[in-house]
Amino acid sequence: MLHEVPFEEVLSDLRRLGARRVLIQSPEGLRREAEELAEFLEREGIEAILHGEVNYGACDPADAEAKRLGCDALIHLGHSYMRLSLEVPTIFIPAFARVDVVLALERNLREIKKLGRRIILVTTAQHIHQLRRARAFLEKAGFKVVIGRGDSRVSWPGQVLGCNFSAARLDGDGILFIGAGTFHPLGVALATGKRVLAVNPYSGDALWMDEMAERFIRKRWAQIAKAMDARRFGVVVSTKKGQLRLAEASRIVRLLREHGREAMLIAMDEISYSKLEGFSFDAYVVVACPRVPIDDVENWRKPVLTPPEVEILLGLRTDYKFDEIRGRERDKDEPLGPSVHGPGAR
Amino acid sequence: MLHEVPFEEVLSDLRRLGARRVLIQSPEGLRREAEELAEFLEREGIEAILHGEVNYGACDPADAEAKRLGCDALIHLGHSYMRLSLEVPTIFIPAFARVDVVLALERNLREIKKLGRRIILVTTAQHIHQLRRARAFLEKAGFKVVIGRGDSRVSWPGQVLGCNFSAARLDGDGILFIGAGTFHPLGVALATGKRVLAVNPYSGDALWMDEMAERFIRKRWAQIAKAMDARRFGVVVSTKKGQLRLAEASRIVRLLREHGREAMLIAMDEISYSKLEGFSFDAYVVVACPRVPIDDVENWRKPVLTPPEVEILLGLRTDYKFDEIRGRERDKDEPLGPSVHGPGAR
Repeated sequence: MLHEVPFEEVLSDLRRLGARRVLIQSPEGLRREAEELAEFLEREGIEAILHGEVNYGACDPADAEAKRLGCDALIHLGHSYMRLSLEVPTIFIPAFARVDVVLALERNLREIKKLGRRIILVTTAQHIHQLRRARAFLEKAGFKVVIGRGDSRVSWPGQVLGCNFSAARLDGDGILFIGAGTFHPLGVALATGKRVLAVNPYSGDALWMDEMAERFIRKRWAQIAKAMDARRFGVVVSTKKGQLRLAEASRIVRLLREHGREAMLIAMDEISYSKLEGFSFDAYVVVACPRVPIDDVENWRKPVLTPPEVEILLGLRTDYKFDEIRGRERDKDEPLGPSVHGPGAR
Repeated sequence: MLHEVPFEEVLSDLRRLGARRVLIQSPEGLRREAEELAEFLEREGIEAILHGEVNYGACDPADAEAKRLGCDALIHLGHSYMRLSLEVPTIFIPAFARVDVVLALERNLREIKKLGRRIILVTTAQHIHQLRRARAFLEKAGFKVVIGRGDSRVSWPGQVLGCNFSAARLDGDGILFIGAGTFHPLGVALATGKRVLAVNPYSGDALWMDEMAERFIRKRWAQIAKAMDARRFGVVVSTKKGQLRLAEASRIVRLLREHGREAMLIAMDEISYSKLEGFSFDAYVVVACPRVPIDDVENWRKPVLTPPEVEILLGLRTDYKFDEIRGRERDKDEPLGPSVHGPGAR
């Protein structure tokens, strides 16, 4: 899935940083690439340690772990930089899919036309390097294509995350999402209220998100209903750097208490219900990665809500709102290759 | 299981430390006590956050997590202090079992006599407050009782951990272990080579460890045999402060490489095989808590060894040696109640 990891470029970055020991962090799909990189660096005289924890995004850099292990640098494989304070110099190496997105667009041109003439174009990091080609193709086909800049949580214009749809908030007739999976385009649909067509470049299929969005909202209302009589709420924050929403969690605790419920803050690294089983809470609110209380809901034996769902529960909101982590204004785009951040970065 | 948590004493410690926000860490069995303490502290105007990760010992204090969450202090429930560098002031509150150990000794006096006249007495932290009574009872019954001081990983004379049997290394005819479970007395038997009788104060049963030790060694030899043809070894270290044996792990990597195997360091927090599945290693060595590669072996689909087992594999050792984490010389004993350590401690 990854373009070749540019070994020599990483090596020269590490040499410039004066790194003698480095921690290599990788998502599940890039374990072998991480091993090969480690072997290469060891041959070049740099001690390499593989991070064995699974990583889901740049919101969870292992910089503190690197520091604890005496590493001079961290290599974060598979994701581009997200603006965060880092404890060691970190080389982010994004991963790009090799599939051609234009073929899938060509195949679904008739459906795409139903979006209207002015199309908002969004995608995930894996396909961002083809966004220019996608735009050119669509413009040639007669569309007006707009691409949002996005805030500081994303790296490139047009990029959406499971927790951030800032690049989709533009004026347009409809939204064209390029990528696999349904979580991202669902979030885009719910965050913007616009019609979203998701084109999957692997399968070549196109999917309108309307029906899924409706089904999703019904399910989440059921979850809210299950929590209606809960007296004691555990409000879970993550200690992962890019998911640590303590102010938001404290606000939810305050809201719940003001409305006659008991609430207590709980901090975790990897959030899972099994670790919480010993506590006596009636329901939980996850104020971390928005995917956790949604994708993982089947594994919770107690109701689990997002922050906006608590507002609905307490009667403070009537419309359904998708949980989102917003950034600040974004400075510059990231390169489409390795980039060094944190202390010692140029 | 716990003696009442001394709420007022904890509160006055926190007030002396000037703490306004505190993280409360608890093992699975003390989740309710953690909740009650949190509620008490919140009523007293101190913001409390429950740590949702499960904790197995003082080797894994959540001081760095506390700091990241903006907490001024950490409360570590259920274990006494282990000498480690802490990033925030930490109140350790040991937990003691309420069961009477002397009743079980009385009941098993005939078996205990088979140990010989000079008895080495050891126990786990849960029963340490009754060690004096146990000793008095045994002396009255005609035994000469010796109790080892132990090194800096333990808090009291006579205390053993699953990873440390320093308090059992004394001159004596046999070893009397008081406590539940078989991991600790098994370790004592294997670490000392002495006959061990384990008296369980809950069930009142007594168990000689000889047979279990033999069975254990046979099983571990089978595990070593399974790893014999492995070419590539993943050598796993833990980022938990009190389990971070990086020098030992690097020694194992060097040994393996010197003997023609490939080896790479892997760092993890909670060590479990499922996270490692994407890597291509043929076998693993866990250089962390010695319980992991032993108690959890059924969940590993690749052979998993301890450091001394690697020495056996490579033909550098012929006798079986139980993995152990040794400390330095220990200064003073811990109190049988809360104690404050780390920055700002008196």
